[in-house]
Amino acid sequence: MEIFTQVAFTSDFGLSDHYVAVTKSVILSRVKRQLSLFDVSHMIPRHKIPKAAYVAATAAKYMGKSTIHLVVVDPGVGTPRRVATYKTEANGVFIAPDNGVLTYAFRWFKGSVLFYKDAVPEYASATFHARDVFAPLVADIANGMNLDEKFAPGGPPPIELPYTEFSKNGREIRGSVIYVDVFGNIVTNIPNETLHSDIVRLKAQGREYTLHRKTTYSEGGKGEVIIIGGSEGFYEIAVNMGSAAAAVGIQELSEVTLVEE
Amino acid sequence: MEIFTQVAFTSDFGLSDHYVAVTKSVILSRVKRQLSLFDVSHMIPRHKIPKAAYVAATAAKYMGKSTIHLVVVDPGVGTPRRVATYKTEANGVFIAPDNGVLTYAFRWFKGSVLFYKDAVPEYASATFHARDVFAPLVADIANGMNLDEKFAPGGPPPIELPYTEFSKNGREIRGSVIYVDVFGNIVTNIPNETLHSDIVRLKAQGREYTLHRKTTYSEGGKGEVIIIGGSEGFYEIAVNMGSAAAAVGIQELSEVTLVEE
Amino acid sequence: MEIFTQVAFTSDFGLSDHYVAVTKSVILSRVKRQLSLFDVSHMIPRHKIPKAAYVAATAAKYMGKSTIHLVVVDPGVGTPRRVATYKTEANGVFIAPDNGVLTYAFRWFKGSVLFYKDAVPEYASATFHARDVFAPLVADIANGMNLDEKFAPGGPPPIELPYTEFSKNGREIRGSVIYVDVFGNIVTNIPNETLHSDIVRLKAQGREYTLHRKTTYSEGGKGEVIIIGGSEGFYEIAVNMGSAAAAVGIQELSEVTLVEE
Repeated sequence: MEIFTQVAFTSDFGLSDHYVAVTKSVILSRVKRQLSLFDVSHMIPRHKIPKAAYVAATAAKYMGKSTIHLVVVDPGVGTPRRVATYKTEANGVFIAPDNGVLTYAFRWFKGSVLFYKDAVPEYASATFHARDVFAPLVADIANGMNLDEKFAPGGPPPIELPYTEFSKNGREIRGSVIYVDVFGNIVTNIPNETLHSDIVRLKAQGREYTLHRKTTYSEGGKGEVIIIGGSEGFYEIAVNMGSAAAAVGIQELSEVTLVEE
Repeated sequence: MEIFTQVAFTSDFGLSDHYVAVTKSVILSRVKRQLSLFDVSHMIPRHKIPKAAYVAATAAKYMGKSTIHLVVVDPGVGTPRRVATYKTEANGVFIAPDNGVLTYAFRWFKGSVLFYKDAVPEYASATFHARDVFAPLVADIANGMNLDEKFAPGGPPPIELPYTEFSKNGREIRGSVIYVDVFGNIVTNIPNETLHSDIVRLKAQGREYTLHRKTTYSEGGKGEVIIIGGSEGFYEIAVNMGSAAAAVGIQELSEVTLVEE
Repeated sequence: MEIFTQVAFTSDFGLSDHYVAVTKSVILSRVKRQLSLFDVSHMIPRHKIPKAAYVAATAAKYMGKSTIHLVVVDPGVGTPRRVATYKTEANGVFIAPDNGVLTYAFRWFKGSVLFYKDAVPEYASATFHARDVFAPLVADIANGMNLDEKFAPGGPPPIELPYTEFSKNGREIRGSVIYVDVFGNIVTNIPNETLHSDIVRLKAQGREYTLHRKTTYSEGGKGEVIIIGGSEGFYEIAVNMGSAAAAVGIQELSEVTLVEE
């Protein structure tokens, strides 16, 4: 049996209100053994499932087997959306609403999906399932509960975000934006090392841009839109000391085409 | 004697500057036993005592006896305002400036109020009592000091925020706004289950609005102002995927009247 | 050998993305002994080296010998800027890019500067040295590595921020702004107790302002620009319930002249 020593928590609750503190307190009050709570991000913009999906899975790449990943961006709270767990081989267990927020965890980590078997308990509020549904389940898992006790496979497959897979056809490369960070850096799903030209045409949302391929942010001239090999293995579109998202109006799940000059 | 294992810290210090880190470091440097520091919120808007009063007390509902609640929103820092502690039966000890910030703790938890007996120490700065006054007192309490050593009852009663108590007179219900969260959800002090109609008239600040009573946020149409039973036991005014606070211009301590149609 | 029990982390990564969580996870995954991670601030405005220099050093005043201070505001990431450590006598060890971000640590704490001997490892990304360079070094130090193994003195002196030292010439006092906090309070490097008049003329950026000297924020009239002895031992320019930075357009490293009336 896996011993979980850490809960990594990603949400769109923000840091102003009591929601994060309450959720954590419910977990801590139910777990007897030593357990660390680790904040991944609570500043996911509200209801932005694609952002949470990327942030939670990327953070999980650097954590081990002993982490429970609680990912709560849940615009459908109170509706009959399912509660999903994803038991990975090497990156711990994820628990989240079944709304696409585990998309990249499914893609990047081997594992199996299970869904919560029971109906939402009667005592649960309609609006705060992080406290009333997810936190108690996290505590159960941390206390050593076998996932099979409350979760089972089957039913429709889990919801995944729609995006265009990476493909390469001669000088034309297609893919998607999978993340835009708070500084406006645009992360694609196009693997580093795919490009060879120093100048690349970007087509997205019916518009075209010229990108200069660089190695570091600081090689970009002021306001110049560049493309660099990103730190997670995918190309990023960036502007040195500026925001590529402001310069190029694309966001998560946008399709992008790169053409090498 | 109570053993305190956690300090729950609520403030309006924000997360940009060193104020939170310094306050915590002073506590940690003075406490020898194991003590966890738990951030409730430091993003309380500056000087907004009603927001801190609600957030700190609501979080405390989910923590146990072994928590010291440090609540520092203190526009009167450096003036002769008193330092209050509130020793509750089941929700730990609160310590805060006597400026109304413990209002909901007083209402929701049984306990007794004590005030700091001494003058502010000479070495204290005029502007950073979290570091110079509160943190050392928190450390004393965590180290096992009996509250009576430095605190005593008596003098004028503690300051409480003025708000209209919940009352019901036929189809007319009166109460107050006790919290507006960062998403614009408006929390009242009117208990869930009070309403029976599906349509409710809201009167506030000389204006009237029609509210549709729903069970979940997502049942609200786009832009529709709804009223739902909230997760803390009080009705909330909300807009699905939007901000009720922007739609209905009311804030903490505003009086509200609901009339069932 | 010093036993380090805490890593105090200051950055401009913000709290929305995965960068802080990833950096911390790399540290934790490499350290076997008990180590606390302590967030000083991750809301340093992007690339604002002077702000990080002040916040990290000020927080360090309240921590002990057993802290490793990781300070990552690094606009030159991926360029050949050096990696610096600063081994202090009483305030732990700092590790940061050599770009001025240790300026106040150098001034306020006795210690010695060492630079990373090796080239950046091949596997390091060009854009995320907190994860690939700094976190592994922090882990090495936490695991008990002697600094001399990977760091050495010599080469050009470390980069320091340019600012005007405090000086007094009769009624005229010169100095600099060393910090502007998120509320708009302006911290100078002019020691408390230097002033004697109740009215002081401020000259900065070619403009002049009249400041009223007070003891607490709340003594200031609405909108009145005041000067008070600050909590870190230096005069602060402030506006009660307002922003001095908005009223007086000066920022970090601006030279200021005060003339006592």
